[in-house]
Amino acid sequence: LNVLDELSEIGRTAEPVIREYVLRGASAEFREVLTHQLDAGGKMLRPALVMLACEAAGGSRHQALKAAAAMELVHNYSLIFDDIIDRGEIRRGKPTTRRVFGDSMALLAALHYREAIAQVVNDSPQSAALHGLVSKAIENLVEGERMDILYEQAGREEEYVKRARMREPSWETYERIVIHKTASLMGACAEAGALIAGASDEVRKGLGDYARLAGEAFQIADDTLDIFGEETKLGKKVGKDIAEHKLGNAAVLLALNELDADGKANLLSILRKEHVSQEDLSQAIELMRSTGCRDKALKIAAERVELAKRALHVLPDSDAKARLIVLAESFVSRQF
Amino acid sequence: LNVLDELSEIGRTAEPVIREYVLRGASAEFREVLTHQLDAGGKMLRPALVMLACEAAGGSRHQALKAAAAMELVHNYSLIFDDIIDRGEIRRGKPTTRRVFGDSMALLAALHYREAIAQVVNDSPQSAALHGLVSKAIENLVEGERMDILYEQAGREEEYVKRARMREPSWETYERIVIHKTASLMGACAEAGALIAGASDEVRKGLGDYARLAGEAFQIADDTLDIFGEETKLGKKVGKDIAEHKLGNAAVLLALNELDADGKANLLSILRKEHVSQEDLSQAIELMRSTGCRDKALKIAAERVELAKRALHVLPDSDAKARLIVLAESFVSRQF
Repeated sequence: LNVLDELSEIGRTAEPVIREYVLRGASAEFREVLTHQLDAGGKMLRPALVMLACEAAGGSRHQALKAAAAMELVHNYSLIFDDIIDRGEIRRGKPTTRRVFGDSMALLAALHYREAIAQVVNDSPQSAALHGLVSKAIENLVEGERMDILYEQAGREEEYVKRARMREPSWETYERIVIHKTASLMGACAEAGALIAGASDEVRKGLGDYARLAGEAFQIADDTLDIFGEETKLGKKVGKDIAEHKLGNAAVLLALNELDADGKANLLSILRKEHVSQEDLSQAIELMRSTGCRDKALKIAAERVELAKRALHVLPDSDAKARLIVLAESFVSRQF
Repeated sequence: LNVLDELSEIGRTAEPVIREYVLRGASAEFREVLTHQLDAGGKMLRPALVMLACEAAGGSRHQALKAAAAMELVHNYSLIFDDIIDRGEIRRGKPTTRRVFGDSMALLAALHYREAIAQVVNDSPQSAALHGLVSKAIENLVEGERMDILYEQAGREEEYVKRARMREPSWETYERIVIHKTASLMGACAEAGALIAGASDEVRKGLGDYARLAGEAFQIADDTLDIFGEETKLGKKVGKDIAEHKLGNAAVLLALNELDADGKANLLSILRKEHVSQEDLSQAIELMRSTGCRDKALKIAAERVELAKRALHVLPDSDAKARLIVLAESFVSRQF
């Protein structure tokens, strides 16, 4: 058995809890809308992270089961509203909730998920502190999504968005987005585990830092794969971020930093086209490839993973800690 | 000073708390989006209800301030997403959040509001029980909105909505919608006040029943006003529910019950037109007027108010109780 499959298996133990809380307050007719996102599957790494962090901090996986369910639900909640905002049609190789049931029902499903989260947190050990952690993590997700929208360079009708758009390529802005939209939730997962284990502040901070750094590495590697990956069986398009006009992509920003004035203007002009053609896309990717931005991005991601592993030094060695190390490494070496 | 103005004034004492929690975790750039809905004002009757229920149950208004802020925020949260779903342009005489900032930003603002709610509840007395109350109330709002959408007879593109639509006029379905979308939140407001006062189960149930019944009366009267009211200075359109194809309106359902086969078919066919013209609207309102549905609806609303007042019998007499009675009466005699 592959170690990553093993991690997914740990995460999947939270699945019955997730379904219980999503469905228990729902009307019979609403159920098919609510289960659609859950049925699409997923690697369940966030709940695994919660449970392993709890175990690594001296608790048991079982104690952290409800917190783990809550965090996976936060992730699914964000996917539903992300698809509404980005008009996503396909996710994990399947049609999205909004594609099947329409935007209004997808929005209502997301809102219902938020209440399932509140309820499972309320029934978890350390519920008051966990409410605070979860709420701050979602607040950060929302802020990350807000900045990500404003870092798109074209493609939206809304006057406000056009006016408030951020046009200057900046690695600093990128970091701010990644911390909010990816790293914060990972950090909250690990901190939730530590909290439930009754860990010291030092251990909690170590686990939180580990997960935030691993989360940054994950996002940077994911950005790179978006541009230079292969067309997958799940229907993921190469260069989707460019087609969606996103300046908030690590490889794009690193390429812009290396290109000469003409190349930079060229790449930016493609990102700013209302419609990016297949030819534009190929041209953008070729331009980017010439800068070596792929290797630069993966190097930055690998450095984050090293820092993530180092943050775990405050914890005693254990099986759970060893798995957390493998998890962080996998964020760069493979993709989820 | 009018008693209702006095109630609004009590409710408004929660406003600084509302702003504090909405803004404290928000980036500087997000603030204008977040405050738009709050700046539009409102009668603040839900927070007044929380505080007066607490006082009537033996507690103080001040104890219930955070719970009151949470409940007004739940209301505002529901207004933002309701406007997204119904493409609302004007609310309280002002352009809606989605109108000014676009659907994506409005959605993110609503999601942020939900976190402000979680955080103010977490800081309130009786936070665990209050989390449960608030969460159930929002779950009900979402279910009410879901049914309301499916009780529209035309006007939406989504295949799923067209397929799942409820086509049969039914007072029972209407009651289910009103309980979920209006009465449940009112009930939660009053129960939150009772909870914080440490009231007995009997008192808590009495206050909850009072508020749910008053909430139903409010919605029935509001539906009637939608059809037979006057064009207001705030830009509220007469017959908006008909233009929006809603079967979920008390006056419409009571009219359908009284009309002969031809009249019924006529009214339903107008509700089912993709575009309802001004002429259609006038014809529908005339048809409805002929049935006396306006007086029937107001009679039902008045009966609910009587039952609401009776539910308060378990409470000792007090100033707060007297104000709650005025509040319920105002739901039919005046409109908010």
